[in-house]
Amino acid sequence: VKQTALSGALIGKGNYRHFMMKEIAEQPAVIGDTLQVFLNPLERRIELPAMPFDFAKLSRLTIVACGTAYLAGFVAKYWFEQIARLPVEIDVASEFRYRTAPLPPDGATLVISQSGETADTLAALRYAKSEGNKIIAVVNVPESTIAREADVVLQTLAGPEIGVASTKAFTTQLVVLATLAIAAARARGAIDAKREGELSGALIEVPARVSEVLNHDQRLKEIALKVAEARDVLFLGRGTSYPIALEGALKLKEISYIHAEGYAAGEMKHGPIALIDEEVPVIVVAPYDDLFDKTASNLQEVRARGGRVVFFSDAEGVAKLGGDAMAAVTLPKVDPFVAPILYAVPVQLLAYHAAVAKGTDVDQPRNLAKSVTVE
Amino acid sequence: VKQTALSGALIGKGNYRHFMMKEIAEQPAVIGDTLQVFLNPLERRIELPAMPFDFAKLSRLTIVACGTAYLAGFVAKYWFEQIARLPVEIDVASEFRYRTAPLPPDGATLVISQSGETADTLAALRYAKSEGNKIIAVVNVPESTIAREADVVLQTLAGPEIGVASTKAFTTQLVVLATLAIAAARARGAIDAKREGELSGALIEVPARVSEVLNHDQRLKEIALKVAEARDVLFLGRGTSYPIALEGALKLKEISYIHAEGYAAGEMKHGPIALIDEEVPVIVVAPYDDLFDKTASNLQEVRARGGRVVFFSDAEGVAKLGGDAMAAVTLPKVDPFVAPILYAVPVQLLAYHAAVAKGTDVDQPRNLAKSVTVE
Repeated sequence: VKQTALSGALIGKGNYRHFMMKEIAEQPAVIGDTLQVFLNPLERRIELPAMPFDFAKLSRLTIVACGTAYLAGFVAKYWFEQIARLPVEIDVASEFRYRTAPLPPDGATLVISQSGETADTLAALRYAKSEGNKIIAVVNVPESTIAREADVVLQTLAGPEIGVASTKAFTTQLVVLATLAIAAARARGAIDAKREGELSGALIEVPARVSEVLNHDQRLKEIALKVAEARDVLFLGRGTSYPIALEGALKLKEISYIHAEGYAAGEMKHGPIALIDEEVPVIVVAPYDDLFDKTASNLQEVRARGGRVVFFSDAEGVAKLGGDAMAAVTLPKVDPFVAPILYAVPVQLLAYHAAVAKGTDVDQPRNLAKSVTVE
Repeated sequence: VKQTALSGALIGKGNYRHFMMKEIAEQPAVIGDTLQVFLNPLERRIELPAMPFDFAKLSRLTIVACGTAYLAGFVAKYWFEQIARLPVEIDVASEFRYRTAPLPPDGATLVISQSGETADTLAALRYAKSEGNKIIAVVNVPESTIAREADVVLQTLAGPEIGVASTKAFTTQLVVLATLAIAAARARGAIDAKREGELSGALIEVPARVSEVLNHDQRLKEIALKVAEARDVLFLGRGTSYPIALEGALKLKEISYIHAEGYAAGEMKHGPIALIDEEVPVIVVAPYDDLFDKTASNLQEVRARGGRVVFFSDAEGVAKLGGDAMAAVTLPKVDPFVAPILYAVPVQLLAYHAAVAKGTDVDQPRNLAKSVTVE
């Protein structure tokens, strides 16, 4: 875990053409900075502020956010359920705030917002509070309204994010949520100190592994030039790769205006597979994990229908299936627990280079605001 | 509530060009048939088989399904939460079966499948059962594997559905789920007999109201001719109209191969609004209910960015906003509780006529199978 000092230099674009690319490149450093706060690297142990509730007594955790922050929460749902055996309900804030959801008494609600000012997320926080829930907020701006109104704040140390499309805020949100899931698992007796050490060790490796992913920039640019020609793109994944597929689609949509859509790989047969022909690139996010074989069979269905597959996996996965793809990118092999943090990076680079190729205004895409402070 | 006898005549296409159109047209009759079983029209009271658990003691209901059946479950989530104050978790079966979700002890899981043979849904059922959950199945085929393995079966009386794109199975699933939500609300003391009578009365009216919606067929055909020219379409809704927006997008995608995507209207600002220009029709599903003003402001954001809006609402909604739309369809005014059943019909007709205009194989769209019995 390395630390960088935030400074005035972070406000400029430095040698980068766009803030977005600069912010993508900052990820190893800001992930390290964020981990430094919540993880003791010597003891390989998570150290969080005191929680205003006992994770062991929670029947359910509610996670509410919008846009990319919602997708960070969606990854966290899998984490909390898998390692802490804690049921999680997740919802987009604009739906949650109006559906007067019944919340468990003495429950806890987790909200996520880069700016800490997202209007729907703030309203969701207030609703959950009025129902007696304690609030944990993951924000990048500690002076924000959401931070002030929460019971406990976990800050991402992403530094100022200028590009409208969120990148380093997303991966630092994931890092904070990963440490929180480990803390919840410990409190609930779902993992022992040894497993906590392994998971912490995997997190400590993330900055270095993300740096390796950034080395694939040129290769991703070549792939992006092909993807940029498409009008429609599908992203597929299973498990924690499913929210990463959704994030890849959202990013591409936001900055390149290509109509990309993310799908749980297993749902493809129930409709979206009808879209697939030679014109539609299909991006498959599939680290070699327990779900690999299932995703592999979906990839082969896509291939059988003429689809052009872009395949993100590790060496084992690429050895097995890379030959079936139009293009494959070999990412470092990591513990499946931290894979979604790593796999977030190639989908950012793909969207970035596709947008640059199309000549859109990468840092200020049409119709979008950085912080959505209205409903 | 009227009853039609299922007979051999249901197997043919009758005077219709496609099974899908015949099945859309059958909806008033089969919704009536299905209601007849679960609703006592004289006493305006729901009458369901005995449940193998007590709704009053459930901490949470888990709903699992795939494709269109998943979207019926998604509408039901809102219903159970709003009228029965029962928290619901919903997931697609292909994700649920592999994420080893922690289920509440002595809980209940509801699975939905037209064929009763959907492989992922069956695996999800078996997982939930192994965790000690009781299983309620909503199926159209009572001899199916899912029906046999469930603890209680609620059958949709849709009759044989031949078109690959589900229509009458979906609306009869909604009807069954609505009666189940009312029964749960009664068991939990969340509604009184008077409110049960009102909700039952609203359901009894549905077949007649769906017939009225079918009278808009010609108007929807005209709109579909414009939509068929688009490569990309967005569907927006809030509350129970959000899953209907998702269903409209799925239907259009399945049979017309137009890349349609559904979104919670409030999420649009967090990304998809970047897609909107004069080329992208935006279908807004917005009965005049508590959420209307919120959706209306999203509609105006779309308009401000040059988007062409197709607006599905009732007389009050159309009076207020129809002038801002490229096209508006005025549906009957109903209790907001049953609105999603009604609004499912125009999105079916829109997809049907768009597919016919494009000359696709409506009843047998490419790449899709009627019943997905493999993973």
